[in-house]
Amino acid sequence: MKASPKYTIGLDYGTNSVRTIIVNTANGKEIATAVWEYEHGEHGVILSRDPNLARQHPGDYVKGAEITIKEALSNARKSVRGFKPEQIVGIGVDTTGSTPMPVDANGKPLAFDKRFKNNPAAMAWLWKDHTSVAEAEEITELARKIRPHYLAKCGGKYSSEWFFSKILHCLRTSPEVFNAAYLWVECADWIPAALTGTEHPDKLSVGVCAAGHKAMYNDDWGGYPDAEFLGQLSPELGKLRERLRQKALTVDKPAGKLTREWAKRTSLQEGIPVAIGAFDAHLGGVGAGIKPGTLVKIIGTSTCDMMVMPESEKLPDIPGLCGIVRGSILPGYYGLKAGQSAVGDIFNWFINYIQPGGPKVCSHSALEKAGAKLKPGESGLLALDWNNGNRTILVDQRLTGLLMGQTLYTTSAEIYRALTEATAFGALTIINRFEEYGVKVEQVVNCGGIAEKSPFTMQIYADVTGRPMKVSRSAQTCALGAAIAGAVVSGVYPDFETAQKFMTGLKPHVFEPNPDANAVYKELYALYKILHDAFGTKEWHGNLFEVMKKLIDIRNKARL
Amino acid sequence: MKASPKYTIGLDYGTNSVRTIIVNTANGKEIATAVWEYEHGEHGVILSRDPNLARQHPGDYVKGAEITIKEALSNARKSVRGFKPEQIVGIGVDTTGSTPMPVDANGKPLAFDKRFKNNPAAMAWLWKDHTSVAEAEEITELARKIRPHYLAKCGGKYSSEWFFSKILHCLRTSPEVFNAAYLWVECADWIPAALTGTEHPDKLSVGVCAAGHKAMYNDDWGGYPDAEFLGQLSPELGKLRERLRQKALTVDKPAGKLTREWAKRTSLQEGIPVAIGAFDAHLGGVGAGIKPGTLVKIIGTSTCDMMVMPESEKLPDIPGLCGIVRGSILPGYYGLKAGQSAVGDIFNWFINYIQPGGPKVCSHSALEKAGAKLKPGESGLLALDWNNGNRTILVDQRLTGLLMGQTLYTTSAEIYRALTEATAFGALTIINRFEEYGVKVEQVVNCGGIAEKSPFTMQIYADVTGRPMKVSRSAQTCALGAAIAGAVVSGVYPDFETAQKFMTGLKPHVFEPNPDANAVYKELYALYKILHDAFGTKEWHGNLFEVMKKLIDIRNKARL
Repeated sequence: MKASPKYTIGLDYGTNSVRTIIVNTANGKEIATAVWEYEHGEHGVILSRDPNLARQHPGDYVKGAEITIKEALSNARKSVRGFKPEQIVGIGVDTTGSTPMPVDANGKPLAFDKRFKNNPAAMAWLWKDHTSVAEAEEITELARKIRPHYLAKCGGKYSSEWFFSKILHCLRTSPEVFNAAYLWVECADWIPAALTGTEHPDKLSVGVCAAGHKAMYNDDWGGYPDAEFLGQLSPELGKLRERLRQKALTVDKPAGKLTREWAKRTSLQEGIPVAIGAFDAHLGGVGAGIKPGTLVKIIGTSTCDMMVMPESEKLPDIPGLCGIVRGSILPGYYGLKAGQSAVGDIFNWFINYIQPGGPKVCSHSALEKAGAKLKPGESGLLALDWNNGNRTILVDQRLTGLLMGQTLYTTSAEIYRALTEATAFGALTIINRFEEYGVKVEQVVNCGGIAEKSPFTMQIYADVTGRPMKVSRSAQTCALGAAIAGAVVSGVYPDFETAQKFMTGLKPHVFEPNPDANAVYKELYALYKILHDAFGTKEWHGNLFEVMKKLIDIRNKARL
Repeated sequence: MKASPKYTIGLDYGTNSVRTIIVNTANGKEIATAVWEYEHGEHGVILSRDPNLARQHPGDYVKGAEITIKEALSNARKSVRGFKPEQIVGIGVDTTGSTPMPVDANGKPLAFDKRFKNNPAAMAWLWKDHTSVAEAEEITELARKIRPHYLAKCGGKYSSEWFFSKILHCLRTSPEVFNAAYLWVECADWIPAALTGTEHPDKLSVGVCAAGHKAMYNDDWGGYPDAEFLGQLSPELGKLRERLRQKALTVDKPAGKLTREWAKRTSLQEGIPVAIGAFDAHLGGVGAGIKPGTLVKIIGTSTCDMMVMPESEKLPDIPGLCGIVRGSILPGYYGLKAGQSAVGDIFNWFINYIQPGGPKVCSHSALEKAGAKLKPGESGLLALDWNNGNRTILVDQRLTGLLMGQTLYTTSAEIYRALTEATAFGALTIINRFEEYGVKVEQVVNCGGIAEKSPFTMQIYADVTGRPMKVSRSAQTCALGAAIAGAVVSGVYPDFETAQKFMTGLKPHVFEPNPDANAVYKELYALYKILHDAFGTKEWHGNLFEVMKKLIDIRNKARL
């Protein structure tokens, strides 16, 4: 008699919507899915007149879980004969981040408090909120002086997108919210806590993924940054230190068990374990089958480039990487994270803002079709993929795009291809950086929207890097990774390696590099690297470095 | 009793069409005009599969003169009561150049010979024919070695667009045409000769404008380059030397008198003088009122920037200038010529090739309107105006366009403005070069299509240069300059200065620089200059110089 299949749920919280998938733990098959767009703000993002502000309402997190779990269960009943909610044995959660929110002494988000109903400072500060640039610089400056080792693990700069920058900015600009907050909790931690009734600060579990990548948490120096450091930024921040958890956990640990109330709301079984939460990209890496030697690229509007190294191996600090955090992707492994600030966003910019040929004519597919007819190097164009700054390896938001080589006959398809090539050069720069520091890239597995939808881009990536581009079997690797965490915490599998073996895979088609194209791209990459170093590094022996900075200064001044 | 007004004709030969204007010598008023588009090739330009090839058929020159003179006379009769063709006392001619054509021993163009009917090598080699790049390099190389002074007067490089490059290329690639040619004659010389029956090589007059700017003619070294020099390029070219005229003349001299036949064809009076021909830009300078201290900018698809200095003053060689030729603009003055390889052509490229927003939405006027709302520096963009290379001061066709500063929100209006500003920076670079070498620019007078039609561009030029931009009263300064030459050779005026006083003028509106805008542009220009020097000069202390060259090499290789 065959045992009844066991399923787990992956709950995937994105920028605009939440998705639930139900996965068969035996083979990784996604038997049902449901998506709900957040109801607050614009497509789930609360905006203001300040273009840097981006917040979310935690009410959307709660409501979204209930709606999508119920709908996914209903879909599962339709797609699998005899499916029963009791077959769901565990839940995993992935979210955006750093997306911290202030909570009260009971762990209740201040956003739920009438006093702060319409106060954006009391909401969840979405990953892409850039209000805290000044605070980020302040934190970087102080760390450089008195705690340089804090920076070594996060690429040398503390970002305005991250935990303490946002808290410090709140303290400075919305003290009433800061003073009402007992603690600040990452979205990735708060959702598992809410599902398991462990929101209270005494019971709360926090994940090492968010803490390590965004809050300078590291067991080597006793967890979060010390009170003296935080206190020098602000005495109030120093006091917050003792309320932060002592220990951050990996995703193989449960945050708790599903409460009776949530079981009733969803018709899931009470008491099934919910894994510690992690960021979408990290669990996406898991869902794409990450392991030593495998670079997982999640390519969408931007990219995350992830690798792991066994904790037993000696790993140097790698300059320019977004972060190196023990256990942040797979337990027992260093998680290494790099990324490009914009990929799909650059293509979208060209289509939506420039609209070459007009909105009826220009589309990604039309420009890809025309661009695919071009040979590498044929256009004479070269671009830098910095329209949204450079995350890896320069870690500099004050960089901008560049296109050169235009003639009087340059076409928009040529430009589109040059922009695509530029993102491929950016991808190669990341691969090279990994390998320069001894992290060997044996295979590249791509996932995310562009990997799914753009063979044009994938082929260029193969030709530029000279490496086969593989694509993850699942189109929802982040949610799948969360479901894998659910399979591990529920004991279906003893560890992630085993779970991945059964639950992840690759698409059969591999994009193989064309040697002729690769030869041309080697020449072009050498030129790209000149521009990259000239415009991107101070060390380069010329004064081009100042150009983009000064342009931004002048622009900012003009916009005052 | 008031004397009957005297009129002269300006015959203006462009790339696509010929224009006749009839001008009242008393006040410069253009009483009638007529335009005829050449009937050979595409809009008058004979093309081939080689994109560098551009020729004209001299038959179009002859037919165009007859048609437009007759039509202009007919129009004059309509616009001025009592007008009679006998009131026309002289003719001036301006043409494109260098546009040489092979002629037989009687001065008849080989294009009229049945044997060469469809042979493009026997046509007029239009100024923008770029088939002779290799020969230009060869000539430059040889001159650098044995006649460096030849190069000092033409910007340090002999161009593929010029007289001897084209003849040498014909010798190498179409020897049957070269061998059938007794002489090569510039279009600017051949047309006045045809009108006056002086085409025969013994009677032919040649102008110093074409000879000096395009054929290294200089009285200081005995006229054209010596036979030894030409002979080293090719013995046949050395032999041609003795058939070239000994003396080139200025535009105050007549090429001859209108023949009976031409009088009959046009109903003009037989025997009226036809001035020595000159290039459009040079006579355009005359028509715009050029004099010492006045920079005349003819701004169209590209620009010509012209100044004059009294021959009595000491003038150094000015590196990067297209040419310094005694008498090439005004008799008794050095003619100094600079230029930008593309201005309107860059704007046209953006509209026609990129079509931002689509053909129904994008237009020069729409983008100017949106661009005019932007403040200097606001877009964060910076461009190099090199889509068609750089004529002055870098004298390098192997340069390409560049745009930097793009974000994810950059608009097409911002790009359009940045491209306009880039051409203004290019204009400022030319002004600075003049002044660095002691040629003081006291006022700037603009003419040509862009000066006429784009207040947006003119205001940016004023703001970027910090100088008032004046606009010539006439919209047809080249043709007007030719008509002024007609007024001088016919004795209506004793000299050009006097003729200009009566026949030229400025529009009342002057574009005054805005000091705030100028302050921002000073900052932007400093950045432009860094890019300019980095990408444009070998001397710059970096290896960016090679980037554009290599891109072109790679492109050319890919296109093979």
